[in-house]
Amino acid sequence: MKKPVSCDVVENAARKALKERGVLIDDIAEIVYEMQAQYSPNLTMDDCYESADAVLCKREIQHAVLVGIELDKLTEKKQLSEPLQSLIESDEGLFGVDETIALGSVFGFGSIAVTTFGYLDKEKKGIIKKLDNNKEQVHTFLDDLVASIAASASARLAHRMRDREENKRKDQIKKREDEELIG
Amino acid sequence: MKKPVSCDVVENAARKALKERGVLIDDIAEIVYEMQAQYSPNLTMDDCYESADAVLCKREIQHAVLVGIELDKLTEKKQLSEPLQSLIESDEGLFGVDETIALGSVFGFGSIAVTTFGYLDKEKKGIIKKLDNNKEQVHTFLDDLVASIAASASARLAHRMRDREENKRKDQIKKREDEELIG
Amino acid sequence: MKKPVSCDVVENAARKALKERGVLIDDIAEIVYEMQAQYSPNLTMDDCYESADAVLCKREIQHAVLVGIELDKLTEKKQLSEPLQSLIESDEGLFGVDETIALGSVFGFGSIAVTTFGYLDKEKKGIIKKLDNNKEQVHTFLDDLVASIAASASARLAHRMRDREENKRKDQIKKREDEELIG
Amino acid sequence: MKKPVSCDVVENAARKALKERGVLIDDIAEIVYEMQAQYSPNLTMDDCYESADAVLCKREIQHAVLVGIELDKLTEKKQLSEPLQSLIESDEGLFGVDETIALGSVFGFGSIAVTTFGYLDKEKKGIIKKLDNNKEQVHTFLDDLVASIAASASARLAHRMRDREENKRKDQIKKREDEELIG
Ligand SMILES: [Ca+2]
Ligand SMILES: [Ca+2]
Ligand SMILES: [Ca+2]
Ligand SMILES: [Ca+2]
Repeated sequence: MKKPVSCDVVENAARKALKERGVLIDDIAEIVYEMQAQYSPNLTMDDCYESADAVLCKREIQHAVLVGIELDKLTEKKQLSEPLQSLIESDEGLFGVDETIALGSVFGFGSIAVTTFGYLDKEKKGIIKKLDNNKEQVHTFLDDLVASIAASASARLAHRMRDREENKRKDQIKKREDEELIG
Repeated sequence: MKKPVSCDVVENAARKALKERGVLIDDIAEIVYEMQAQYSPNLTMDDCYESADAVLCKREIQHAVLVGIELDKLTEKKQLSEPLQSLIESDEGLFGVDETIALGSVFGFGSIAVTTFGYLDKEKKGIIKKLDNNKEQVHTFLDDLVASIAASASARLAHRMRDREENKRKDQIKKREDEELIG
Repeated sequence: MKKPVSCDVVENAARKALKERGVLIDDIAEIVYEMQAQYSPNLTMDDCYESADAVLCKREIQHAVLVGIELDKLTEKKQLSEPLQSLIESDEGLFGVDETIALGSVFGFGSIAVTTFGYLDKEKKGIIKKLDNNKEQVHTFLDDLVASIAASASARLAHRMRDREENKRKDQIKKREDEELIG
Repeated sequence: MKKPVSCDVVENAARKALKERGVLIDDIAEIVYEMQAQYSPNLTMDDCYESADAVLCKREIQHAVLVGIELDKLTEKKQLSEPLQSLIESDEGLFGVDETIALGSVFGFGSIAVTTFGYLDKEKKGIIKKLDNNKEQVHTFLDDLVASIAASASARLAHRMRDREENKRKDQIKKREDEELIG
């Protein structure tokens, strides 16, 4: 049996593919910030960057990115057979495999991620809008992948913020308890 | 083995439950119209009503409605054990079983349905907004169920409009072909 | 705007692609029969064929079939970039985009479809086994697509059988009522 | 605004509920072992226990457990309204809300988790079989929840084993490199 492809190779390829197609982690972080700032007053852009970066560590998302961008590029090069070539090229409204692939990796971050993904799919924000408007390249799959990563990072952050909040509360309790023990 | 519950009984119960909790098919049709009118210039409110009504014929949705409304009502009557009672009563942000149950029946109508559901979950339109603002009753599950039915009806309609369009085109072709055969 | 690809073209392409890759509707019907016969004593192979055929009328499944088989064929021809080429070629265990694409169209037939899909994915039956054992061709996506169609057709059938049963019961009641009215 | 329910309270309640309904983490670990041993020759029962325990730390699963067991218990006490009471009591074949709730938390662990869940739903193993055969209590939701936790723990383990494997390989490479540097 052949040695399986190393995780590092897959992760690096996915990150490189995103970059080559014009998507920076900063672009994704901006969407995350826009989605989550209303719920977390102390949210920083660094939190959002960190969360988007963490999401990109998951195999499920790396695989989705590799497949989606490959299909976009093959479509650009007119290397798909018909009628698939036309379906993807025209970003046909009833074609949903792009959303399906993106959804697969969104599920990993719970129902907030799924609803945020749906929202971003309709209200194309930031880089998603830019990809959607780019008429020279095919981004039928990429826009959904970016929405997927941003949605996942948003949900991940919502959970983290809560954990942080609760821990702070626990720390405070602990500190109070410690202080009560003093003397 | 006991005779299974008849489908009619389940369907009637689900429709009655929605009505009793203040949700009319017309309310759902309005959301569907708002979501789909931009894509289908000839869309009528009757199309939207018919689509919402058709979605309610599916078992998956009827079951989801029965479970969700039951949990809302039990919560109102303080009949759930803690901490579930508090989680549902406060419509806790990280509690996602309401979305999960609603999503289960959305999947049946494809990826457009899923993204529309996500959108409606964020941008609470029409009756969903009203349910969300109602502070006297518990609608933790119902708002998602309504979003689910509206999203499913929207997706169903998108597919129907396309079918209708293509058939018209075929009819036109057929007519032209028929006319060419005349004489 | 370009005219969208006609539904008939998409449907014919999907059916042709399955056939060319060695999958007949009869093969799928056999799996459906094996899955459902235990629940429905009167089930015929014709019921199963009809159900598999009906599932193939859905856009969601046609699109999934086109994308999946395209990726299998491109992999066979070594036309994908690395590391995706190796991931698909080796049918890497942690690569799940094939299941994700297949799942997308399974959801349309409810939770029985999802669990049946999961079962078929583990216990490779009939043609799925044959595809999996075929070492000359790449069927990384196709085996999941077949499991998806078979699972959807099984769930569809379970719902149909129940409808049929209930209608028979209603007919019987109706007949009894009619007879009671006689004379 | 009321203080949200603390995570610890939710987690403890979910763990206690499982235990009270007769499900130990050891029972779940056994299923995990049976599912994964074939893929990982060095797998220990401790690995499986640890993985099942880790899955129970996720909010999504805790919430699903709380809702599902609550519905089972309310059904036992005949406190649900009809026809929902009968649907759950009879574990009606076409009722899928139990699978939907369980699936919601399975998605978090990728497509291997989903297919393993489907398999366990059909081939009721260990404690799942026991719950299914228990005619004195209602376990319509619990059997799916256990399948969900076991499936998630299995998928989590599959990913962990791979990570472990790759790290070992890296360690070996590192050691070799270090040795080559010696002298
Ligand atoms: Ca797209
Ligand atoms: Ca809600
Ligand atoms: Ca496969
Ligand atoms: Ca069950």
